[in-house]
Amino acid sequence: MIVILKPHTPTPQVDEVLREIQRLGYEPRPIFGSEQTVVAAIGDERTHLTLESLSAMPQVERVVPVQKRHKLVSRESHPANSVLDIDGVLVGGSQFCVMAGPCSVESEEQLLSTARAVKAAGATILRGGAYKPRTSPYEFQGLGQEGLALLKLARKETGLKIITEVLSERHVEQVAEAADILQIGARNAQNYQLLIECARSGKPILLKRGLSERIEEWLLAAEYILAHGNSKVLFCERGIRTFETYTRNTLDLGAAAILKNESHLPVIIDPSQGCGRADLVSALCRGAAAVGADGILVEVHPNPKKALSDGQQQLDIEGFQSLMSGLEPILKALGRSL
Amino acid sequence: MIVILKPHTPTPQVDEVLREIQRLGYEPRPIFGSEQTVVAAIGDERTHLTLESLSAMPQVERVVPVQKRHKLVSRESHPANSVLDIDGVLVGGSQFCVMAGPCSVESEEQLLSTARAVKAAGATILRGGAYKPRTSPYEFQGLGQEGLALLKLARKETGLKIITEVLSERHVEQVAEAADILQIGARNAQNYQLLIECARSGKPILLKRGLSERIEEWLLAAEYILAHGNSKVLFCERGIRTFETYTRNTLDLGAAAILKNESHLPVIIDPSQGCGRADLVSALCRGAAAVGADGILVEVHPNPKKALSDGQQQLDIEGFQSLMSGLEPILKALGRSL
Amino acid sequence: MIVILKPHTPTPQVDEVLREIQRLGYEPRPIFGSEQTVVAAIGDERTHLTLESLSAMPQVERVVPVQKRHKLVSRESHPANSVLDIDGVLVGGSQFCVMAGPCSVESEEQLLSTARAVKAAGATILRGGAYKPRTSPYEFQGLGQEGLALLKLARKETGLKIITEVLSERHVEQVAEAADILQIGARNAQNYQLLIECARSGKPILLKRGLSERIEEWLLAAEYILAHGNSKVLFCERGIRTFETYTRNTLDLGAAAILKNESHLPVIIDPSQGCGRADLVSALCRGAAAVGADGILVEVHPNPKKALSDGQQQLDIEGFQSLMSGLEPILKALGRSL
Amino acid sequence: MIVILKPHTPTPQVDEVLREIQRLGYEPRPIFGSEQTVVAAIGDERTHLTLESLSAMPQVERVVPVQKRHKLVSRESHPANSVLDIDGVLVGGSQFCVMAGPCSVESEEQLLSTARAVKAAGATILRGGAYKPRTSPYEFQGLGQEGLALLKLARKETGLKIITEVLSERHVEQVAEAADILQIGARNAQNYQLLIECARSGKPILLKRGLSERIEEWLLAAEYILAHGNSKVLFCERGIRTFETYTRNTLDLGAAAILKNESHLPVIIDPSQGCGRADLVSALCRGAAAVGADGILVEVHPNPKKALSDGQQQLDIEGFQSLMSGLEPILKALGRSL
Repeated sequence: MIVILKPHTPTPQVDEVLREIQRLGYEPRPIFGSEQTVVAAIGDERTHLTLESLSAMPQVERVVPVQKRHKLVSRESHPANSVLDIDGVLVGGSQFCVMAGPCSVESEEQLLSTARAVKAAGATILRGGAYKPRTSPYEFQGLGQEGLALLKLARKETGLKIITEVLSERHVEQVAEAADILQIGARNAQNYQLLIECARSGKPILLKRGLSERIEEWLLAAEYILAHGNSKVLFCERGIRTFETYTRNTLDLGAAAILKNESHLPVIIDPSQGCGRADLVSALCRGAAAVGADGILVEVHPNPKKALSDGQQQLDIEGFQSLMSGLEPILKALGRSL
Repeated sequence: MIVILKPHTPTPQVDEVLREIQRLGYEPRPIFGSEQTVVAAIGDERTHLTLESLSAMPQVERVVPVQKRHKLVSRESHPANSVLDIDGVLVGGSQFCVMAGPCSVESEEQLLSTARAVKAAGATILRGGAYKPRTSPYEFQGLGQEGLALLKLARKETGLKIITEVLSERHVEQVAEAADILQIGARNAQNYQLLIECARSGKPILLKRGLSERIEEWLLAAEYILAHGNSKVLFCERGIRTFETYTRNTLDLGAAAILKNESHLPVIIDPSQGCGRADLVSALCRGAAAVGADGILVEVHPNPKKALSDGQQQLDIEGFQSLMSGLEPILKALGRSL
Repeated sequence: MIVILKPHTPTPQVDEVLREIQRLGYEPRPIFGSEQTVVAAIGDERTHLTLESLSAMPQVERVVPVQKRHKLVSRESHPANSVLDIDGVLVGGSQFCVMAGPCSVESEEQLLSTARAVKAAGATILRGGAYKPRTSPYEFQGLGQEGLALLKLARKETGLKIITEVLSERHVEQVAEAADILQIGARNAQNYQLLIECARSGKPILLKRGLSERIEEWLLAAEYILAHGNSKVLFCERGIRTFETYTRNTLDLGAAAILKNESHLPVIIDPSQGCGRADLVSALCRGAAAVGADGILVEVHPNPKKALSDGQQQLDIEGFQSLMSGLEPILKALGRSL
Repeated sequence: MIVILKPHTPTPQVDEVLREIQRLGYEPRPIFGSEQTVVAAIGDERTHLTLESLSAMPQVERVVPVQKRHKLVSRESHPANSVLDIDGVLVGGSQFCVMAGPCSVESEEQLLSTARAVKAAGATILRGGAYKPRTSPYEFQGLGQEGLALLKLARKETGLKIITEVLSERHVEQVAEAADILQIGARNAQNYQLLIECARSGKPILLKRGLSERIEEWLLAAEYILAHGNSKVLFCERGIRTFETYTRNTLDLGAAAILKNESHLPVIIDPSQGCGRADLVSALCRGAAAVGADGILVEVHPNPKKALSDGQQQLDIEGFQSLMSGLEPILKALGRSL
């Protein structure tokens, strides 16, 4: 860490800072500039206590961490890409992974017809919400266990792998029994107790970015999962909250490029939540492939205007087919296959 | 709801929208402008399905909700201020409530010395984190149950009421046993399963605002608690996430004024998290009182530079005393007492 | 416009609103719901005064505009893509336009060596700042007129077209004399007097998005230029300001897709400003092409670590060549040429 | 500055960085940690070129400035508060300054009746827009020179000092002739050419914060004015742009406390723009006084619902009187007078 002192701090007060740094187990190295003194504190920031509390001293202007705080998720710890094997579907390698399906599981017919159609168009993983986190307590909250049963049925009928969201530590077991990937939604992105519980299930976990979660915080949320013994994490960018009102969120496609630099784990893009408008989804999926994401998570519904949730952002079957045929030549140009 | 159609939508496509509105249980009333048609849909938006999925129809430009979605928390449902009785301490009436204490419970001595000092300076509720949600898995995570035991001891020794954070559905029972108010932190602000579980405990709940939670979403998160039978909710503004980097968060003092208009429930301001810098806390507390908040939640530590978490934003005892003496004349001018 | 009244507004106060709507030249059409009354106001919102001031009436909850406020820039007014002819270089058609060059013009050698290199790699337009808007008055402010002279020289030597920024109404004439495209920077994105002055020059104008400018505001800023008789506008997305600190800005690639829907004008992406880090530029350029942008604006410097401004985000020559060769197959897959 | 190198950078590449630091005129002082090397660069950051371009070197992780970039506006350069004398009205001392008047100057009657009323209620400075920056080119753009003439008349009739906005370098002279304070609006907050031109007029300048301007950028924008020989600057916080949609902007009251720490110049709060809703203005003005602002800038209109611009956020006369009487006891408690 580096401790920057206020201009013209007198020597006794510099010494006081040096003593505190030492007390916290670091070796202080002061550098005296013409106006300001800075102190480099030598020591592993990950195993020592933070020096940030020294900002409470009146002579300290600020404390600047040097080391990155994430370890297990970092590219340094694992230089090659991690390729996850989702019961036979590989994610993170040269294959581009398409996860598709309805926002909410609504009925057997809705789910199975969608599953068959997205499979035929090239998807390998079926998405569908059984437990739904809704902004208002008066909105449709998902079919719950009945939804999970329908997802299992769809898996059996089509062979598609299943991804669905977990909302509660108490649901982890039942969701893990039905799903191949546990999804952590944006609102629970820093619900560390839920992350730890999911980690313990041993299942692959798709970790969505929080509404205004910084990249560093997101890496550290994933670090919670790896630190609890589960290295099967997929990052999922799903739009961040900004001042813009034209779209529901602002999809941060650059985040995929950043994560591929910083981490070895696969990155998925969710353009449906990302913009909240069906008319932009295809363009954003092409963009996702081009910036280097490993896959997409797309909402598809047989009849979006009748959807029980988020109809405005779900593609219909035809829209999804057209998305897939537009994606193919770009993936080819990038040296990736579906 | 109001459904706005695209310019020059032909009659058959207008009719299609009218039929869908009817199918969803609303009575459609089209108004034909010179360029655009808008359709008012008569019906209770809170008991019917949303019309927002109609945005999936190509002729629909957008759907505008008319009714507010929150009911039980609204000022309309309960025109007078709700005054909560926290085991004898009243919050939401003419008394201004001061909650103070360390960010984390660290030791018996640290907690008790702080408790005695904040009580002597006028606080009535003691804060202190036993379970701490930390951005990195390698940071101090709180003393957990041992911290709860120390809080109970502090309550017994000083008579102060206790507020502490709940991180997990599984901790609700033990935290409810130790605390007079359950605190929901910013990262769990839309963790609805945790809100519901806390609601069921029957305890008063201080609901912090999420990092980038809109006022409407915050009201609806509180609505989850009231809809599950617990009306003892305190809103707590603790700073929102913006582009500014000078402070850790941007404290939205105006939110207190808004919530006092929209809701009957008490509003507390947390300036410590709100700005993340001890040097701004006093000014922000004065501001909190002036805009109409019902109380403050302030971090106080006997020796901030030795704090195990967030030392830079904790006041020392002297700083807290000075804050309290600066607050008094303003409260008096506002017709409020400590 | 639609005027939404508060729940249970009594008839005389509804009538008062109707009278005000009429006074402002609209025809009011009230629809009485069970709880709330809404009033549709028939009339052209673009030629009448706004009704938003009616929000000042205590019985009015809010006023919702119906019509889009931009006209001349809209896709409706001009369904085909506008293809701009920049002295022989076409932008907005099937050709993908590459503008490249240094952040600041620093010297003849720096500029000419960059110009030759970017031309060889496929760029058709040379960028370079002569007047630089710098956050601090003590930073390098650009070479000014001397920089313009060097740009003219580079044009003569290489045949590349020139784009450079205008900071002041008083510089418009001299910049227009040297440049083929006038660039309006993010900080002047809503400096309407400068937009109008540039419009009058008759030159093509590249209009960068403001730091936190909404899409609608951006369309309307362009509308200022078209309404003053100049339809040669290029939109340029250059990153928006968000809470993220890993990158300098957050590049909103989705904005390109939105603008191609909403407007007939070309859209350029500036990934250098957009992320502020050279290591992300290539991936973002591929993303720009894939989401449908018409070109890119890239900072290239022969020796970025010696750059007088923004070295950290400038590609060196080799980096630019590698960017161009990575872009080619994607453009081909998209049916576009360089 | 401090240059942080990537983990495990080998010695020759460290040396390369040291040479570059030396070339740029700083004295490099490397500190070798266990994993990472940091280099402190000794030298005045304000008179030397920035080292930030060194981030372009592959072995450099990031560059951290140490010194604050603002000088003349800083509290260090002028420890006492600057009290500006606006033709007899003192701002920045113990008196609290109230500036009030309509958003736009609309007519003689509108302006004079407002001027008389706000004076009677305690305002000393009259605000009113003659040149209005409007989001759409089709909206009312202000009365221009006719508006300036009316402001001069109001000054003569009432003795109130005048503040009005300057939009263009070309208007500075005429506005300076009519006004006692030149107002720079949010959209021109970083239009440095306009700032410099206004500085040269010698008039006091009220510098609004940009929509998403960081505190540091705002201080530096003011530094432009002082560096051009004019030290009569008033900061004006007017709300920042965030994700919240309940209010037009989010008023950052904490910014007033920050600026009073960082700078010697007066700070004014504009709650009308700050929230965009008349119903919150009074509470926010009380908050402004309590956090330590030196004054307020409030929009007042004799009949807001008939206002040509921003009626929803303007107080009527009665509302303003009530605001003033609510403010008085708080100012007294704070030891300030009107």
